[in-house]
Amino acid sequence: MLKLMQFTINRAAFVKELNNVSRAISSKTTIPILTGLKIVASDTGLLLTGSNADISIETLIRSDDPDIGLTVDEPGSIVLTARFFSEIVKRLPEKTMTVSVKDGFQTEITSGSAAFNINGQDANNYPHLPEVDAGDAVTLSGAVFKELISQTVIAVSNQESRPILTGVHFVLADNQFLAVATDSHRLSQRQIELPTPSNAAFDVIIPGKSLTELSRMIGDDDSDVKMQFSENQVLFLLGDTSFYSRLLEGNYPDTSRLIPKDASTTVEFEAPELLAAVERASLLSHESRNNVVKLTLKPSDHQVTIFSNSPDVGNVEEALTPKTLDGEDLEISFNPDYMKDALRSFGQSVIRVAFTSALRPFTLVPTEDTSNFIQLITPVRTF
Amino acid sequence: MLKLMQFTINRAAFVKELNNVSRAISSKTTIPILTGLKIVASDTGLLLTGSNADISIETLIRSDDPDIGLTVDEPGSIVLTARFFSEIVKRLPEKTMTVSVKDGFQTEITSGSAAFNINGQDANNYPHLPEVDAGDAVTLSGAVFKELISQTVIAVSNQESRPILTGVHFVLADNQFLAVATDSHRLSQRQIELPTPSNAAFDVIIPGKSLTELSRMIGDDDSDVKMQFSENQVLFLLGDTSFYSRLLEGNYPDTSRLIPKDASTTVEFEAPELLAAVERASLLSHESRNNVVKLTLKPSDHQVTIFSNSPDVGNVEEALTPKTLDGEDLEISFNPDYMKDALRSFGQSVIRVAFTSALRPFTLVPTEDTSNFIQLITPVRTF
Repeated sequence: MLKLMQFTINRAAFVKELNNVSRAISSKTTIPILTGLKIVASDTGLLLTGSNADISIETLIRSDDPDIGLTVDEPGSIVLTARFFSEIVKRLPEKTMTVSVKDGFQTEITSGSAAFNINGQDANNYPHLPEVDAGDAVTLSGAVFKELISQTVIAVSNQESRPILTGVHFVLADNQFLAVATDSHRLSQRQIELPTPSNAAFDVIIPGKSLTELSRMIGDDDSDVKMQFSENQVLFLLGDTSFYSRLLEGNYPDTSRLIPKDASTTVEFEAPELLAAVERASLLSHESRNNVVKLTLKPSDHQVTIFSNSPDVGNVEEALTPKTLDGEDLEISFNPDYMKDALRSFGQSVIRVAFTSALRPFTLVPTEDTSNFIQLITPVRTF
Repeated sequence: MLKLMQFTINRAAFVKELNNVSRAISSKTTIPILTGLKIVASDTGLLLTGSNADISIETLIRSDDPDIGLTVDEPGSIVLTARFFSEIVKRLPEKTMTVSVKDGFQTEITSGSAAFNINGQDANNYPHLPEVDAGDAVTLSGAVFKELISQTVIAVSNQESRPILTGVHFVLADNQFLAVATDSHRLSQRQIELPTPSNAAFDVIIPGKSLTELSRMIGDDDSDVKMQFSENQVLFLLGDTSFYSRLLEGNYPDTSRLIPKDASTTVEFEAPELLAAVERASLLSHESRNNVVKLTLKPSDHQVTIFSNSPDVGNVEEALTPKTLDGEDLEISFNPDYMKDALRSFGQSVIRVAFTSALRPFTLVPTEDTSNFIQLITPVRTF
């Protein structure tokens, strides 16, 4: 029988790549062919593609990689239902598997004595991925990029009412790479100086969800991530994998003026200690309608206390032991969930919290590097 | 201020016992006080109680256990909202914690500099647990009991239309302990000879859900489980913990006549190998309306194949390699999900499958012990 495509591959290696591309494939889509995985077999290797309305992922499995044991017997292409194909591949009995496409896009998947025959679709009907040119590219190490995403994406908005705030604002100018996100109640900002001087410049807004998905694909081997743009797309290159995301259109609000320059009260904590106390206080605030925790700072008495209550359930009060405490006495209330997100982003660092007044936003920075990473939280008025 | 109860305890040890008792506490209940955990502090120690409509769990934390570091300063009792109290205890900052009940059932929970004040309820309003006398008690090792539950509970019915089938039938007679469950499509039966001769006898039906919950409480230390009955309750004793379950009322169907005595075709497999092949075949059957997998046995040709198809998606066929194959040629169809549950219950054993005809139930037994453990599955008519 005529073979329209045929290849044999190491199953474990194939599953790994399949899982990566599957991140872009949703079984809920209005375009039926996008529930499929596109496979193109050529002399170079296999090109796997998955896509949804927001992101597309393409990965090349090379024929010349001995760990992958890929043999392409017949070049060709096919689209197979991704979820179902993945389940089959994961449950096959042997170490290698063969995929063979016959007339009418009937696809046979064999491994040992197990043979699956499933219906495929013509790969010519699969949409084309956007073209992204190589101008204004920026390269960062995977670890730095992953950290930058995790530190900022916590502050993006989940509300579609202001779509622009569901993205992270990325600005490159004068060799400084700035990432900012805000949902209008809090803000996260991280700045990085490029390791190698570059003339590139851009000002784009990337959906937070795309960045979260990208972050999961960046491995622990700390390989480089290269980032380049077209008018409405960004392309991240991770080795042989291309990750495309649409950009958000519109002007991002000017966030630089939101960050206060001065402080009237400052306090320093081990981030994990303050986090644990806020988590305890939030047990009570979550039982209350307004979800608020109160921090009382009395530099005059060397005292900091955290307090929360719920009329139905009870209250919690805890004396905290800051590393330093300076300035004016202050009582300030805030949403503990914003505080928890912010504190987690600092890991094990010592942080400085700076307040100006009970109604003005306050900031958190690591004491080690006070100018390149900042979390800002707007307090809640309780009187 | 007057203390109505006060104790101090090692937090980690307390959390462990709290988690066990919490298995019986649901936040969805029509009796509000049952969302609470009852604590009784006495000179002996702390008695924790949780209960719902089906099961009750009571555990004693002894004052004289040095690992628990319990000090009862003031005997007394209180009921505290279980879910909320657990969350507080888990997040407290220090190794020890103090619980102190004041006027109006206000309860203070302190650890280090954190102090929670929550509203408690009068323990006198908590329902009494059933009285279960010690007659006809049976003791089995925890490991044996846990295995017996896992092997039979898979076949209980989830349908409330025949409530009696949602339980496991336990019969003790002539020193033989028999457990049977069936949902009318399949049956699991396990028999154990009591290690020490006993005159005890019983015939009861215990809800499958109670047994699953009990099974999770049996640790890996293989301590004994003691089982005793009242008219409508069973009590399992695990060390200092008492686990009560209601019994199901009614007559369990006579299942002994369902198990065929003869076989016309028999085949032996490594259970995990057959399981993997059935899992592969079920990928296709699950895409089909009738969820059926077909097994073709041809002792005449030394061939066994498994097959499934879905008109929309495709088909799968696999040649199997049994250890032995005897008798008449046969083609039989069944629900692969029942087969998977049955095969998993045999672990790594070699099993014998015995068929009489395409429309009669077939059985699976371990070849090592063919008379004390049996799984039975009713085939599906496909013609």
